[in-house]
Amino acid sequence: MRAQLPVEPPLEGESLDAILDDYEAVIAPANTHWNHPGFFAYFAISGSGPGIVGEALAAALNVNAMLWRTSPAATELEEQVCDWVRRMVDLPSDFRGHINDTASISTLLALAAARHRADPESREQGLAGRTDLPRLTVYTSDQAHSSVDKAMMAIGLGAGSLRRVASDDRFQMRTGDLAAAIAADRAAGNRPIAVVATIGTTSTTSVDPVAAIADLCEREGLWLHVDAAYAGSAAICSEYRPLFAGWERADSVVTNPHKWLFTPVDCSLLFVRDVDELRATFSLVPEYLKSGEREVTNLMDLGVQLGRRFRALKLWMVIRAFGVNGLAQRIRRHCDLAARLAAWIEQEPLFELAAPVPFSLVCFRARLGDSGGERDRLNQELMERVNAEGPVFLSHTRLDDRFAIRLAIGNIKTTSNEVEHAWRLLCRHATELAT
Amino acid sequence: MRAQLPVEPPLEGESLDAILDDYEAVIAPANTHWNHPGFFAYFAISGSGPGIVGEALAAALNVNAMLWRTSPAATELEEQVCDWVRRMVDLPSDFRGHINDTASISTLLALAAARHRADPESREQGLAGRTDLPRLTVYTSDQAHSSVDKAMMAIGLGAGSLRRVASDDRFQMRTGDLAAAIAADRAAGNRPIAVVATIGTTSTTSVDPVAAIADLCEREGLWLHVDAAYAGSAAICSEYRPLFAGWERADSVVTNPHKWLFTPVDCSLLFVRDVDELRATFSLVPEYLKSGEREVTNLMDLGVQLGRRFRALKLWMVIRAFGVNGLAQRIRRHCDLAARLAAWIEQEPLFELAAPVPFSLVCFRARLGDSGGERDRLNQELMERVNAEGPVFLSHTRLDDRFAIRLAIGNIKTTSNEVEHAWRLLCRHATELAT
Repeated sequence: MRAQLPVEPPLEGESLDAILDDYEAVIAPANTHWNHPGFFAYFAISGSGPGIVGEALAAALNVNAMLWRTSPAATELEEQVCDWVRRMVDLPSDFRGHINDTASISTLLALAAARHRADPESREQGLAGRTDLPRLTVYTSDQAHSSVDKAMMAIGLGAGSLRRVASDDRFQMRTGDLAAAIAADRAAGNRPIAVVATIGTTSTTSVDPVAAIADLCEREGLWLHVDAAYAGSAAICSEYRPLFAGWERADSVVTNPHKWLFTPVDCSLLFVRDVDELRATFSLVPEYLKSGEREVTNLMDLGVQLGRRFRALKLWMVIRAFGVNGLAQRIRRHCDLAARLAAWIEQEPLFELAAPVPFSLVCFRARLGDSGGERDRLNQELMERVNAEGPVFLSHTRLDDRFAIRLAIGNIKTTSNEVEHAWRLLCRHATELAT
Repeated sequence: MRAQLPVEPPLEGESLDAILDDYEAVIAPANTHWNHPGFFAYFAISGSGPGIVGEALAAALNVNAMLWRTSPAATELEEQVCDWVRRMVDLPSDFRGHINDTASISTLLALAAARHRADPESREQGLAGRTDLPRLTVYTSDQAHSSVDKAMMAIGLGAGSLRRVASDDRFQMRTGDLAAAIAADRAAGNRPIAVVATIGTTSTTSVDPVAAIADLCEREGLWLHVDAAYAGSAAICSEYRPLFAGWERADSVVTNPHKWLFTPVDCSLLFVRDVDELRATFSLVPEYLKSGEREVTNLMDLGVQLGRRFRALKLWMVIRAFGVNGLAQRIRRHCDLAARLAAWIEQEPLFELAAPVPFSLVCFRARLGDSGGERDRLNQELMERVNAEGPVFLSHTRLDDRFAIRLAIGNIKTTSNEVEHAWRLLCRHATELAT
C-alpha cells in the first residue's frame, strides 16, 4: 500500500471528498477487517454502532481527562461505568476501576504497584545499585500472555525474573509447581512479590485455579493480579461465574471491554482492591496541574500516562444501548456457537480438539500427516488455504509444541452462517490435503 | 454529575436517541470544553473536523495494528505519515517514527531504550539484586515535564535518579550545571545514561540549548531524548527552525500531533535514530503472534503495548485536509496572536510578562499586592474570576516560586476575538482587584 502513497506530504489542503475517495481506493482494501463477522483470528472483537458513536463524540469533545477539573464528566463517567462493570461481573464493592488503553498497561501498573508494596523505596531510589535489595520475582503460567513479560522488562524487574510455572494437560497453572517455584526463590535469597493468574488464556482460554492461587498468595504475602482481559466479560453471565471463583480475592483484575464487550479499541479496565496503593506508586502533581478541588478523583494519579481520552463515553453508550441482558445474551450466543463447532469437530474423524472450550474460542487440528512435523506443516497449510479463500480469517498457536488452529468467536455480527462457512472450508481443504 | 446517573447498569437496551438525549442533558454540561476556541489552559488543543472523521473511521474499522498482518494499512500508513511529519519538521532521514498514545509513553520507551543501551542485561536480569550494577542516572532541567519523573519511577530507575538541573532566567537548562551534575555522579560511582532536553517546556515553552547538550551527550556517551511534545509542530514553519537546532543529533524525539497539529487525542510520535535499539529493548513474539512475513514492520515490537489503534488514519486525514502550508499558516497565526497579547501586556502597567514568549503560550501576572504572597493570592483570584465569567479558561504555573497565569493558544478555531475577550476580562478584573 505504501508505494501508492506520495513520498512527500501535500503542500496544499484537499477536500474531504477527495481524501475519502483515496481512503476507499487505497487504504480500505489494504486492511485486515477485524470488524468483519468472519474474523475469527486472535481474539475476535467488535466495534459496535453505539461504541463507534461514542468514539466519534469523544474525538469531537477532545477532552484530556487527566484531572477532575479538566473534565468532570469524563472523570465521573469513568468512575461510574467502571462500577457498572464491577457490578455486572460481580466483583466486590471495594474494587475500584479505571480505564487504560490496553491490558499491557493495566498489567504493568498492577506489577508496578506490587513492586511498590514490596519495596516502597523503589519509587525514589529505583532498583539499580542497591545493596539492600534482592532480586524481585513474579510468577505466572507458561500459558500467560506476553504482556506479562513485557511489563517485567519495562518496570526493571527483568523478563528472567518472571517464573513461568508449568500448566497441566488442560493448560491450567499447576499450583504445586507454583508453590515449589516460590520456595526455591526464597531459598535462593530472591524476593517473590506477585503472581499473575489468568482467566481465559490467549492460546486456549484456559482458566487457572485462581482460588487455590489466592490461598497461596495470602499465605506468602504476594500480590495477586488476575488477567481476565478476554474472558472477564463472560462473568456477566451467571452460569460462567464458577470459572471466576477466587478472583474476588485478587489485589487487581484486568478485563478489556474492547475484547468481548463490543467496545472499539482501546478500553482496558483495571480494578484494584486498594486504589491508594496505585496512587502511592504513581501520583505526582507538578505545579501547572495543581488544582483546588478536594475529594475528587484525578485519574492521572493512577498510572503512567498523563493524557487520557474520554474512553468511558463509548463504554457507557454500549452498556446503555445493549443493556446487561443484551450483552449477556450476545456473549452466550458466542459461547453456544463455539460449543457447536467443538461438537462438529469431535464428530469428524479428520479433526480433533486441541484444548477444552470453556468460552468462545475453539483450538483444534486436522489429523493430517504421519509425523508431528508433517502434521504441523499440513495444519499450517490448511489454515493458510482457508484464510486465502475467505471471507474468514483464522490464527494459530502451539500447544504441547504442536501447531493448533484457533477459531475465536467474538464479533457482534457473527452468526452460525460464518461459523458454518469456516467449518465447510476447513473440511474441504483438509480432505484435499489428506488425499 | 455522577449523582444523576443510575447506580445500577440498565438491564435492557435503550434507543440511541434516548442515550444521546441523556448525553446532551447530563454529560455535555458537565464537561470542560477543550475543543472550544476560548480554551486557553494547559496546552490548548484541537479535534479538527478531518481528525474527528479519521477517529470515527478508525473506530468503525476497529483494527488492532500489532502486526503488519493484522493491518497492513494501519502499519504502512503509520510508517508513511510519520515520515511525512519527519519531512515537515526537517528531522534527518535516519529517524524512524511510530505512534504512541501519549508523550508519557514515548518518553518511557526512550528512557527504557537508553537503559537497555547502558545495560543490555537489564532486559533479562532486571535491575534489582545485581552487584554489578551502579545507580543509573538521568538528567533534565527543573522545567521538564513530570512525565520524565513518572517514566523514571515506572522503569525502575527511581524518581530520585532523575537529576533536575537548574535553568537560567529564561528557563533554559544551564549546561554548565548539567556537566557538573554528570561529573558528580561519575565521581560518586553512579552511571549517567541519558539526558532529556525540552523544546517547549510545559510551564513557559522555554527551549533548552539542545546543540550544547548534544555536544555533552556525545562526549559523555549519553542517550539524548528531546521532548518537543508541544512545540515540535512549530518546526513545520521554517522561521522557527533555529529554535530546534541540535535536535537532529538526538537519539529520540517526541512530538504530539494531538497537541498542536489539530489531531484528536491521542497521537504522540516517537522518532528514534536507531529503531533497532527500541526493538532490542522490547521485541518479544509469542507463538500465537508469529507470522510468516519477512521484511515488514510489526509495530508491537517497538513498545510496551500490544494493542494499537489505527491512529495514523486521523493524522493522515489532517495532513491531507490542511496541507503542510495550511498547517504552518495556522501555527503561525497562533504564535502571532500570542505575540500580540504579549505586546498588550508589556504596554499595560498593571501587568507584566513572567517569561519570554517563543511560541504560542503567554505567561504573565498582574502587578497586584504588596508582598509576594499577596501578589500570588490576588493573581490566583484574578484567574478564578476570569474563568468563572468565561467563556475562556486559563491555567497557571509557578515561576521562580511565584504564581503566573498561563494563556495557551492552540485551538484551530481561536481567533483574535477570544484573545481580546480574555484580555478585556483580565484587565477589568485586575482593575477591580487593584482598587
